[in-house]
Amino acid sequence: MREFRRDPIVGRWVIISSERAHRPFAFSKTEREEDPPNTCPFCWGNEKFTPPEIVAIREPHSSKDTPGWSIRVIPNKYPALKVEGELIKSADGIYDKITGIGAHEVIIETPQHNFDLYQMSKTNVENILKIYRDRILDLKKDIRFEYILIFKNCGKQAGATLTHPHSQLIALPMIPIIIKQELIGSENYFYYKERCIYCDIINEELNKNLRVISENEDFIAICPYASRFPFEIWILPKRHDPMYEDIQDKEISNLASIIQLINKKLNLALEKPPYNYILHTSPLKQYNLSHYHWHIEIMPQLSGVGGFEWGSGFYINPIPPEEATKFLIET
Amino acid sequence: MREFRRDPIVGRWVIISSERAHRPFAFSKTEREEDPPNTCPFCWGNEKFTPPEIVAIREPHSSKDTPGWSIRVIPNKYPALKVEGELIKSADGIYDKITGIGAHEVIIETPQHNFDLYQMSKTNVENILKIYRDRILDLKKDIRFEYILIFKNCGKQAGATLTHPHSQLIALPMIPIIIKQELIGSENYFYYKERCIYCDIINEELNKNLRVISENEDFIAICPYASRFPFEIWILPKRHDPMYEDIQDKEISNLASIIQLINKKLNLALEKPPYNYILHTSPLKQYNLSHYHWHIEIMPQLSGVGGFEWGSGFYINPIPPEEATKFLIET
Repeated sequence: MREFRRDPIVGRWVIISSERAHRPFAFSKTEREEDPPNTCPFCWGNEKFTPPEIVAIREPHSSKDTPGWSIRVIPNKYPALKVEGELIKSADGIYDKITGIGAHEVIIETPQHNFDLYQMSKTNVENILKIYRDRILDLKKDIRFEYILIFKNCGKQAGATLTHPHSQLIALPMIPIIIKQELIGSENYFYYKERCIYCDIINEELNKNLRVISENEDFIAICPYASRFPFEIWILPKRHDPMYEDIQDKEISNLASIIQLINKKLNLALEKPPYNYILHTSPLKQYNLSHYHWHIEIMPQLSGVGGFEWGSGFYINPIPPEEATKFLIET
Repeated sequence: MREFRRDPIVGRWVIISSERAHRPFAFSKTEREEDPPNTCPFCWGNEKFTPPEIVAIREPHSSKDTPGWSIRVIPNKYPALKVEGELIKSADGIYDKITGIGAHEVIIETPQHNFDLYQMSKTNVENILKIYRDRILDLKKDIRFEYILIFKNCGKQAGATLTHPHSQLIALPMIPIIIKQELIGSENYFYYKERCIYCDIINEELNKNLRVISENEDFIAICPYASRFPFEIWILPKRHDPMYEDIQDKEISNLASIIQLINKKLNLALEKPPYNYILHTSPLKQYNLSHYHWHIEIMPQLSGVGGFEWGSGFYINPIPPEEATKFLIET
């Protein structure tokens, strides 16, 4: 197979070229590196090495910033942005700048130093997902913020500096450009069809059943039609909702199930690959958009993706998503 | 320093957060790995391991596909696209696809297995740049193509699969999304100001002199105001021209000089970093645009850039471009 496919939301063309997978060097597996637990600031007993916790799920009677927690949210020790200060927008010659105001938090997902999501209890994964919701609802009160980006880097090659499972949250005074492109693309589609493009994708995928890895009552996991990377996976809620923070407890249970299943399959099929996941949700000040639909994008970081791709916006994917889907279903 | 800066062309916001450079792990240098020359298909004597050459600069009386060349252009052995076949655009359910028609060529830049650009003769670098021009002019005759992407990956971490110096060319039946964004952004600016934004950037940088690494009669090399990566560098022609293939021989000489200088500085300052460069030029069927301006973007691939960045479109850069410029000037 050798064809161009267009991402229907942002209009990005991708080359699906499965012949390239036959290159001798095309698919060397990249196993995650691990750092040792004894010096890990995210392990029990090392709480003093992090800034004071913002919130935590703890055993009764355990004290703040001591062991006894199952999930712990802290400010990033090396924050890209700071909450304190005034939001000032100004010109800088012909350019534009804004003071570096924002929040940068770390969600330590478990006391276990090297568990991945599928190895945790389901309750723990549900609690992580509830904490995402609660942190959004809390930070949303700060009207300086326009967007909250939640993501997870797992493995050094995916940008993680520590092995211990954690995700990150960045609250921003602007909307990231990829989200802007999704908003524009999905709004154009809505203008044309009066339907949400993500809802259409869910229906199309369920009808064709070529790229559905798994589904349950509330969620579907697919390899998207114009996958940029081998084994790229999107998890979409079946109920149309633009805002993650609207998620209901029953949905959280079903989201935890599908995340754990996908995470297990990825770890088995690709032998503990480095990966990223990113929550795509509505801007904080745009409510109940008919054209936008929150979702999670998961990208395993296998070898062979260079800076060329992000410099040009052009992606060559040697594994058709239909093959990736088949492989993951059979794993 | 901790601030947001906006790329004036595409509107992408970047966090410049120099405090993060103090993280103990922020700036581990990544030296390029090298593979041995004896098995290299791009070395003299191994011509039989590549597809037949398209064009080459050769010693008189040397034969095609034998040693004696200084630069050799070949089809990619594992092409992402093929020239043969019909360009068919069709629906695929709710999605859109195009047959994988295109050209995918490799420009072997020198017979020397592990030279970087600054180590080659100036004439050789000029010849590489002339070959870029000539290949564009040749492939432009094929009306199926809309865009030609020329880029160089150097080092495995930058996506190169072979050490031997080479660049690549991909001719495409569509415009890559980042070029589209540049075209839209620069057109909006032109609509507002009646000036080319790239010309304005050149003037601003020459006036302020905070981010100019080097300039000569025809070219300027800067660290851009909203650099996504540490030591990101743009080389821009001072003469407004949207199309690289318009370049004159005198300009080629000055472009070779500034490329060799920048390449030497990068290799010395960052100890042979993996890097990419990408030629940004006009779409093939859009002539003499007043708002677009060809240029080269160079991105060293230092550690710490994860998939998060390209998944979200959001970049955190720990080295302000003013500091990177100063460091490169002093190197």
